[in-house]
Amino acid sequence: MPLDLQDLGRRAKAASVLLARVTTDQKNRALLAIADSLDARAESILAANRLDLENGRAAGLSAALLDRMSLEGGRLAAIAEDVRKVAALSDPVGAQFDARTLPNGLQASRRRTPIGVIGVIYEARPNVTVDVVALTLKSGNAVILRGGKEILGSNLAIVSAIRDGLNGLKQGGFEAVLLSDAIQVIDDPDRRYIDEMLRLHQYIDMIIPRGGAALHKLCRENSTIPVITGGIGVCHAYVDDTAKLDDALNIVFNGKTQRPSVCNTLDTLLVHDAVAAAFLPRVAERLGAANVLFKAEPKALALLSQTGARVEPAGPDDFDIEWMALILGVKVVSGLDEALDHIHRHSTGHSEVILTETPTHADRFVNEVDSSAVFVNASTRFNDGGQLGLGAEIAVSTQKLHARGPMALEELTTYKWVVIGSGHVRP
Amino acid sequence: MPLDLQDLGRRAKAASVLLARVTTDQKNRALLAIADSLDARAESILAANRLDLENGRAAGLSAALLDRMSLEGGRLAAIAEDVRKVAALSDPVGAQFDARTLPNGLQASRRRTPIGVIGVIYEARPNVTVDVVALTLKSGNAVILRGGKEILGSNLAIVSAIRDGLNGLKQGGFEAVLLSDAIQVIDDPDRRYIDEMLRLHQYIDMIIPRGGAALHKLCRENSTIPVITGGIGVCHAYVDDTAKLDDALNIVFNGKTQRPSVCNTLDTLLVHDAVAAAFLPRVAERLGAANVLFKAEPKALALLSQTGARVEPAGPDDFDIEWMALILGVKVVSGLDEALDHIHRHSTGHSEVILTETPTHADRFVNEVDSSAVFVNASTRFNDGGQLGLGAEIAVSTQKLHARGPMALEELTTYKWVVIGSGHVRP
Repeated sequence: MPLDLQDLGRRAKAASVLLARVTTDQKNRALLAIADSLDARAESILAANRLDLENGRAAGLSAALLDRMSLEGGRLAAIAEDVRKVAALSDPVGAQFDARTLPNGLQASRRRTPIGVIGVIYEARPNVTVDVVALTLKSGNAVILRGGKEILGSNLAIVSAIRDGLNGLKQGGFEAVLLSDAIQVIDDPDRRYIDEMLRLHQYIDMIIPRGGAALHKLCRENSTIPVITGGIGVCHAYVDDTAKLDDALNIVFNGKTQRPSVCNTLDTLLVHDAVAAAFLPRVAERLGAANVLFKAEPKALALLSQTGARVEPAGPDDFDIEWMALILGVKVVSGLDEALDHIHRHSTGHSEVILTETPTHADRFVNEVDSSAVFVNASTRFNDGGQLGLGAEIAVSTQKLHARGPMALEELTTYKWVVIGSGHVRP
Repeated sequence: MPLDLQDLGRRAKAASVLLARVTTDQKNRALLAIADSLDARAESILAANRLDLENGRAAGLSAALLDRMSLEGGRLAAIAEDVRKVAALSDPVGAQFDARTLPNGLQASRRRTPIGVIGVIYEARPNVTVDVVALTLKSGNAVILRGGKEILGSNLAIVSAIRDGLNGLKQGGFEAVLLSDAIQVIDDPDRRYIDEMLRLHQYIDMIIPRGGAALHKLCRENSTIPVITGGIGVCHAYVDDTAKLDDALNIVFNGKTQRPSVCNTLDTLLVHDAVAAAFLPRVAERLGAANVLFKAEPKALALLSQTGARVEPAGPDDFDIEWMALILGVKVVSGLDEALDHIHRHSTGHSEVILTETPTHADRFVNEVDSSAVFVNASTRFNDGGQLGLGAEIAVSTQKLHARGPMALEELTTYKWVVIGSGHVRP
């Protein structure tokens, strides 16, 4: 039977109206009930997950993908624990800001409110299902989930456990049955439902795609709903002539090798000519030992090749690729201007870092690089909601509207103006 | 010769990079130079405007539209004066917020920056051309203007004066010639350039449509660039049983009659049953004298008809129409719940007001009405950037993302994360 997305959207919207009125305490109790239910139903969730993994192996999925799909080895318990952490975060809803008394006596302020219904389209990672439910619920939003088809069984088991947890709260004083309409799953993997979802602007207020460039392009070109694009990072480090080379080496190593498959990982290293001969052989040695392949421009190629590292000449498009792998583009530049010029031409606006002890260079870099996060003497790997003190993260935005960089609870809210008068009319 | 929108976009983008570095003082001097140039070139602008008006009259445009097109009668001087007011507003760019020192010693904050390039599609109102240029320049953004074809001559004369003003600053120390690339005009009225503009996501960061529902729909369905939708207001007043009826009458009168053609004007009056008999005849008398036509449900119809006011039965779709005219829908409701239910079904999320002296009802209305501005005992006509103390307004957003309600300078900015370390790597 075909899915009725109109009905699904309508129910999510209706639930979002109720959810906006639920208190912080009620939301936190719901989150704790969800966490407990995930623990209590661990066996059935893990059984569904094992079946997804078996089918994935039979379909020839890569070991890396199968690993991301897996909930084994204590991962499910850790995910439930993360839900409890979201319960402990402060609730952004209801906060007032920009309060002002106007000359005519009107009291105006902005008040933070949930956005409404959020649609999330994501890859084969069942932990995302739980993260998204926890963050949208805590911020008072309903959610429509469309996860990767490879983990559909795991997701259905997870959402069933979540709904059980919420239904158990019925005795607790609020309408958990209606609340459970706040979490909707598109449980048919047919891609036409993604297209249909992207045009449900009557019911969905925001689309968050989590995936590769193709998914973001699909959403940007077909959605009639505002889309948060992001997650694609061609990230740069520039090592200036005054950089502390020990720190620079650590930061480049950390940025490239700690988790090569994520978006805040380094793709390109730009090195000031004056320190290239001292620095690049050390880079080749340290990162080469971690099996990094270098794609280098001629000058860098010569310096890197003195070591035993794997080095190739950079091709014409190599500085525009998000490698997602142990590959690093390397270029020697004449100084800050050439570095900034390279970044302006190749950055995707995600994360860039300057290594320098020259304050005026740090200032120029921070002012002129137009990325979601700009770093001075720190790893780009810190462009992450948890690392920047937001407590969580639903996505990293590289677009300019609404939110930029890590999106956590506050970024899942909007505001309304509240204006209190005593018979005021506009003259 | 067909327009090269790619080139136009590229130049705007390049100018936006320079504009982001211009100081507040430089931007203010540019604004004052623009205002002076508008004054100095008034004759040629008014001549172009007279030609637009002549052509408009020959084409049979309505008197109301011709009036909106006109710069006569001191309007141009007033518009130039408004540019000087924007120069006096504080500059949002560069402000830091959410500064934090993380447990590992990293210094992180968000810093307000221009958005980049903003595309504005608007109707036949030459004052909008100047407003948009002033607000985008002050907030450090480049702009691509596509105004109504009826005022193309006026717009070209205005932009020519603006560019003259900026070029005169060349001696003043910053690159005014490049800066003048920051203001681009689509000077061919062919609508296919709107379609092309809506897909220039490589160069344009935000689209602001100013116009009717059809324009907003066109943008939402065809743009690959984030769009600020808004400006469509089916606005409600609810008169509760404890309302001060004198105040309520003033607020309903002000909301409906002060400027019937704008978006924050009242469309629907909901009246508590207990005060309907006392209140509605007064509404009929006061608003009827201002030539308001009432579209009423049966109960309201009976009460309104006792007077000499023009009253018609409300049709099935009448409560979903933004009238933009001296027409008011009227309905008697049993109380706050029915009023909220009506508003949830018919509001476009623009502006709603409750008239009440019952604090718990005011609180429920403020909490449960999900609109860009919610008023208690004050006219919906205050949903305006100038009236709410923002100093200006480029549009009123009724969507949930980025900005809601009046958009002024701060709403034309985004932010970047700035993270300062001393060799920090992620553990």
